[in-house]
Amino acid sequence: MYGISQKLNSKMIWQVLLLMSVIFMVFIGPASAATVDENSMAIGDLQTALTFMWLLICGAIVFLMHAGFSLVEIGLTRTKNTANILMKNFMTICLGIVVYWLVGWGIMYGADAAGLIGTNQFMLMGAMDNATWNGWWFQMVFAATGATIVSGAMAERTDFKSYLIYTVLMVALIYPVYGHWVWSGAGILTSGFLVDAIGQSFHDFAGSGVVHSIGGYSALAGIMLVGPRIGKFKNGKAIAIPGHSLPLAFLGTLILAFGWVGFNGGSTLDGNDPYASMVIVNTFLAAGAGAIMVMIITWIKTGKPDPSLTANGLLAGLVAITAPCGSVTNWASVVIGLVAGIVVYAGVMFNENTLKLDDPVGAVAVHGYCGTWGLLAVGIFALGQGDGSMLADAAYTAAGAGLIYGGTQQFMIQVVGAILSIVWAFVISFIIFKILDAVVGLRVSEEHEIAGLDVVEHGISAYPEFMILKE
Amino acid sequence: MYGISQKLNSKMIWQVLLLMSVIFMVFIGPASAATVDENSMAIGDLQTALTFMWLLICGAIVFLMHAGFSLVEIGLTRTKNTANILMKNFMTICLGIVVYWLVGWGIMYGADAAGLIGTNQFMLMGAMDNATWNGWWFQMVFAATGATIVSGAMAERTDFKSYLIYTVLMVALIYPVYGHWVWSGAGILTSGFLVDAIGQSFHDFAGSGVVHSIGGYSALAGIMLVGPRIGKFKNGKAIAIPGHSLPLAFLGTLILAFGWVGFNGGSTLDGNDPYASMVIVNTFLAAGAGAIMVMIITWIKTGKPDPSLTANGLLAGLVAITAPCGSVTNWASVVIGLVAGIVVYAGVMFNENTLKLDDPVGAVAVHGYCGTWGLLAVGIFALGQGDGSMLADAAYTAAGAGLIYGGTQQFMIQVVGAILSIVWAFVISFIIFKILDAVVGLRVSEEHEIAGLDVVEHGISAYPEFMILKE
Amino acid sequence: MYGISQKLNSKMIWQVLLLMSVIFMVFIGPASAATVDENSMAIGDLQTALTFMWLLICGAIVFLMHAGFSLVEIGLTRTKNTANILMKNFMTICLGIVVYWLVGWGIMYGADAAGLIGTNQFMLMGAMDNATWNGWWFQMVFAATGATIVSGAMAERTDFKSYLIYTVLMVALIYPVYGHWVWSGAGILTSGFLVDAIGQSFHDFAGSGVVHSIGGYSALAGIMLVGPRIGKFKNGKAIAIPGHSLPLAFLGTLILAFGWVGFNGGSTLDGNDPYASMVIVNTFLAAGAGAIMVMIITWIKTGKPDPSLTANGLLAGLVAITAPCGSVTNWASVVIGLVAGIVVYAGVMFNENTLKLDDPVGAVAVHGYCGTWGLLAVGIFALGQGDGSMLADAAYTAAGAGLIYGGTQQFMIQVVGAILSIVWAFVISFIIFKILDAVVGLRVSEEHEIAGLDVVEHGISAYPEFMILKE
Repeated sequence: MYGISQKLNSKMIWQVLLLMSVIFMVFIGPASAATVDENSMAIGDLQTALTFMWLLICGAIVFLMHAGFSLVEIGLTRTKNTANILMKNFMTICLGIVVYWLVGWGIMYGADAAGLIGTNQFMLMGAMDNATWNGWWFQMVFAATGATIVSGAMAERTDFKSYLIYTVLMVALIYPVYGHWVWSGAGILTSGFLVDAIGQSFHDFAGSGVVHSIGGYSALAGIMLVGPRIGKFKNGKAIAIPGHSLPLAFLGTLILAFGWVGFNGGSTLDGNDPYASMVIVNTFLAAGAGAIMVMIITWIKTGKPDPSLTANGLLAGLVAITAPCGSVTNWASVVIGLVAGIVVYAGVMFNENTLKLDDPVGAVAVHGYCGTWGLLAVGIFALGQGDGSMLADAAYTAAGAGLIYGGTQQFMIQVVGAILSIVWAFVISFIIFKILDAVVGLRVSEEHEIAGLDVVEHGISAYPEFMILKE
Repeated sequence: MYGISQKLNSKMIWQVLLLMSVIFMVFIGPASAATVDENSMAIGDLQTALTFMWLLICGAIVFLMHAGFSLVEIGLTRTKNTANILMKNFMTICLGIVVYWLVGWGIMYGADAAGLIGTNQFMLMGAMDNATWNGWWFQMVFAATGATIVSGAMAERTDFKSYLIYTVLMVALIYPVYGHWVWSGAGILTSGFLVDAIGQSFHDFAGSGVVHSIGGYSALAGIMLVGPRIGKFKNGKAIAIPGHSLPLAFLGTLILAFGWVGFNGGSTLDGNDPYASMVIVNTFLAAGAGAIMVMIITWIKTGKPDPSLTANGLLAGLVAITAPCGSVTNWASVVIGLVAGIVVYAGVMFNENTLKLDDPVGAVAVHGYCGTWGLLAVGIFALGQGDGSMLADAAYTAAGAGLIYGGTQQFMIQVVGAILSIVWAFVISFIIFKILDAVVGLRVSEEHEIAGLDVVEHGISAYPEFMILKE
Repeated sequence: MYGISQKLNSKMIWQVLLLMSVIFMVFIGPASAATVDENSMAIGDLQTALTFMWLLICGAIVFLMHAGFSLVEIGLTRTKNTANILMKNFMTICLGIVVYWLVGWGIMYGADAAGLIGTNQFMLMGAMDNATWNGWWFQMVFAATGATIVSGAMAERTDFKSYLIYTVLMVALIYPVYGHWVWSGAGILTSGFLVDAIGQSFHDFAGSGVVHSIGGYSALAGIMLVGPRIGKFKNGKAIAIPGHSLPLAFLGTLILAFGWVGFNGGSTLDGNDPYASMVIVNTFLAAGAGAIMVMIITWIKTGKPDPSLTANGLLAGLVAITAPCGSVTNWASVVIGLVAGIVVYAGVMFNENTLKLDDPVGAVAVHGYCGTWGLLAVGIFALGQGDGSMLADAAYTAAGAGLIYGGTQQFMIQVVGAILSIVWAFVISFIIFKILDAVVGLRVSEEHEIAGLDVVEHGISAYPEFMILKE
């Protein structure tokens, strides 16, 4: 009995154990496995949600930059054109929203044709999902920026209607076409024969080229055609026309700097990418360095530190670091900012004294010249993305090694991309402004310019209760 | 030997395998299962953290709207009342914080009584946890908005003390009672006989009704009782009284638009809901469309695009899309914005020329009329939430199908809810203002109004160094 | 046959089951286990990403506070010094970025020496990773705040060059040394003999001491040495010098309040900490209470509610709640805010009428006195962190029990820490200003002061088109 019982027991124990194993695997195991998958899906949803939240908030911060641009522009111009400038900048973003939805996004991110242009998704047709909406929101707040830059350079003498038409074309065509070349993934600057020939993709992290260079050289075409404001040059010498409100100019500048957290930080396009931290640190190191450099230069040159140029120094640093911020070291960012300070000062002086151009807010120097400097700086200072690069685990693709790290290909493609942005923006804008001048009239009449655009174009005064000094 | 050994071996192998299985399950399996549960809990914590972060940031952005309201209001009024208006708006949010903590939240979200009012959680008693704090923060920044709207409409002639008392009552009672009806989950517009009779819940995503309509029609009662400013009407004809600073008005408008990212985006109440992206896209499409429409109307009507009305056009679009933004398509959002532009223009003209009401900032038209339009627009354009709706997987509950999709119930309950908000806000505010007029005095003396409220109520001037033109 | 077949079958079934178990464990089990680990790692990455995002956004919001400080300061001073003040505040943050990178961070968070000072990580050397960058960004935006506070108190008569040098020293040394004592984890106020003797660590959640008290008592030293503005005192009686723009002062105040969401909320230093919600609710309850209290006091004292003092009341509440916001109840926050309102009013009066000090923006009272009050308030109202405390599960370490909960140690160390901040800030700043006065000159000439610093130091006017009343 004992033997059998023992044998039975022993056998039963094994069988009970085995049954328990099976039951465990049938009920617990698979249940557990399913939960692992569920967890994995929930994690994926969280990663998506983090990206969505990051781009929604960064986009909101970038949206506020339109207030910053408005304030800088009115601060640096005269009271008699303030309402007009406010209205121009305001309509730029309002039209920008609708036009980028109707056309711009499709041109930029629609199905590629020949590496040159996108061809569908107009009105987001066929792409109505939250990922597209999220991307559209972040891209849209960038899109109207180019036109806003132009608005500043051409302020105080440009016809309101002409400007609005130009804005529509900027958001529908000028900006998104170059944007397609750089950021669509299928454009000529990141794939195709140019890239094959040079052996490297163009790198413009957050838009020194796509946004600022495009805006800046479009503005250059504009101010060449519209001509200087009455009284800006006397006997070939530039006369300072002081802006009417330094507080608004500085508030605008600080709002723009705030906006750059979203502009560059959000351009990781991934809320899970830890390199957003590096990007933002680099961004503000360059900003600080740019302002310090201009303060020093103006202090040395004139004996007095110049406030509005110094404010432009900060913007210069920000514009320049916009392309390289995700690919360079901290000290390189400081250098990029310092050089941007030199570029913007020299650029403003060159435009005014040599080219005899009138750019009330210094937009061409800040956005154009420093945008170009930023694109080239990538090719000089980029750490490279190869093995051992600390940037290897970033979610975005950092630039290839720059000149100081022995790379030459990145610099070459940066030169090409920079030239393309200058040529495209300048030529297409020149043509458009020429046509507008012929058809609508680009510049207001002398009488209207002297009276001020506020009364003439809008029938009001921006400061009706304040006593204003006559010029 | 072989046979035995083989048999033994074979048996031993099975037993070893079985033992390993058991060991695996005892040590690895459960360990793994526990970690799955731990992961699952960590995921839950992350989802909560994401929602908390979303509502903290969105709430912060909405808080800044109080700066926006202040700037719009002072920008569109005269220098002599600027300090008073700043102080009113500032105390609105300061009192709002404390009063919504003491009373308002409890009335809105406390235990329901008869679908009409909340009855506990005053000072958050019995509900002191992070979820409640998070929710309170987001709701609180909304609560003071209603009073701020009223402040704008009644600016330049209302007694400061009366206004403060009214503000306390707005935050403690007027706003949270209607809020309870709509957003508590237990109110008469989302449960009970009304909903049963119509067969659909009222849908007000982010407060076209709860915030804007309540504020707007309270303002209507206020301006009817306080009367127009001295000089506003001459021989029955409205005289324009220009605001003193268009830059501040526009800065305020853009800050408000920025705030709407938090206002509508945060109203998903869930940081994991991807539909926040759709909500924000719809919001800004309507905003842009509203501004464009008003610019066009004023351009046609007067030959000149009017800046301050155009700014109100943006706000009109934003107010109108606040209810439907989570339930409609992109193109519907554009249409809602365009119609809002018409509504706000027609409303301003109707109030001024037909009703002979004086509303310095157009608050009744923007927040009242466009709020009503937004509530009705839900019933017209909502996609519906049934099978196959792309909105089915949103974390919030979208509205039922609107008229254009063959639904009628949603439209019916929207009409009921819109009427209730008008009646409640107008009647209760009318009564309160009547009592305040009798007890405290609603309007300042003629002498004080002419002198300006800054000197009279606060003993200072907002711009003591600037030369101001006499009227 | 049957018997054998059955036996075989039975045995085979067991063996098949067992094999399946093993196969399951080999292929599914481990696979599942691996995925559990992968999930766990992904969760860790998400938690890190959430913290990074939280601190990037909170840091951005705090950055904008520099616009707020600028606006408050120019709003409360005269037009003739506006450009100078804007430039000072602007260079404070620009220099702050670069100096805190070069030196400040290393002094504050580098390897500890004797609990007194950090000694490495200058230029972030040896610490270039995203966690450090993220932390640096959030700390950097705090660092320049101390100098900005000093700027306000010394406005309208201080030499620009001297101020810049002082700013560099503030960001490189004054601020980070005390910051090291409190926030590095190795400083004398959180470890070592002081803490051992008292038995409790000093608690300064977001910087009532580190930021505000340091800034406030440095400002006290500054205004003692630089002396009052010409015309501020007549026959020993203080004369009001009204600020030139109340709108800018109020806008600045509201931007500062917005900034405090990042300032206090971000000081959880953890995006996963649900107590950020409590922190922000407490912060705004104190803010509202502070403003209400000052409005009431000024109303009673002068018969009229004073706008600029009331705005300072909000800031007083914010400064005071900055230390205790993570350790106290809602009602305690209201009390702390109400008392802060009393402190700031009494402080402003005491400084002006008794000490005969000239502080144009009330910075010493707001940041110094209310900073001290905030540090002490921790020792009075803190709930304690022991068992059963609702704060036990916060990611940060809350303060020990305050006086009203029977604790005395926390209060004692708070007194010590508060005194140390006063002594350190006052003495070091006094010495620096003395040296600057001797070497560079601390105060501009009488002639320059009367002409205004804008023209003298920068060669421009902030409002060149507006007619300004002569004093």
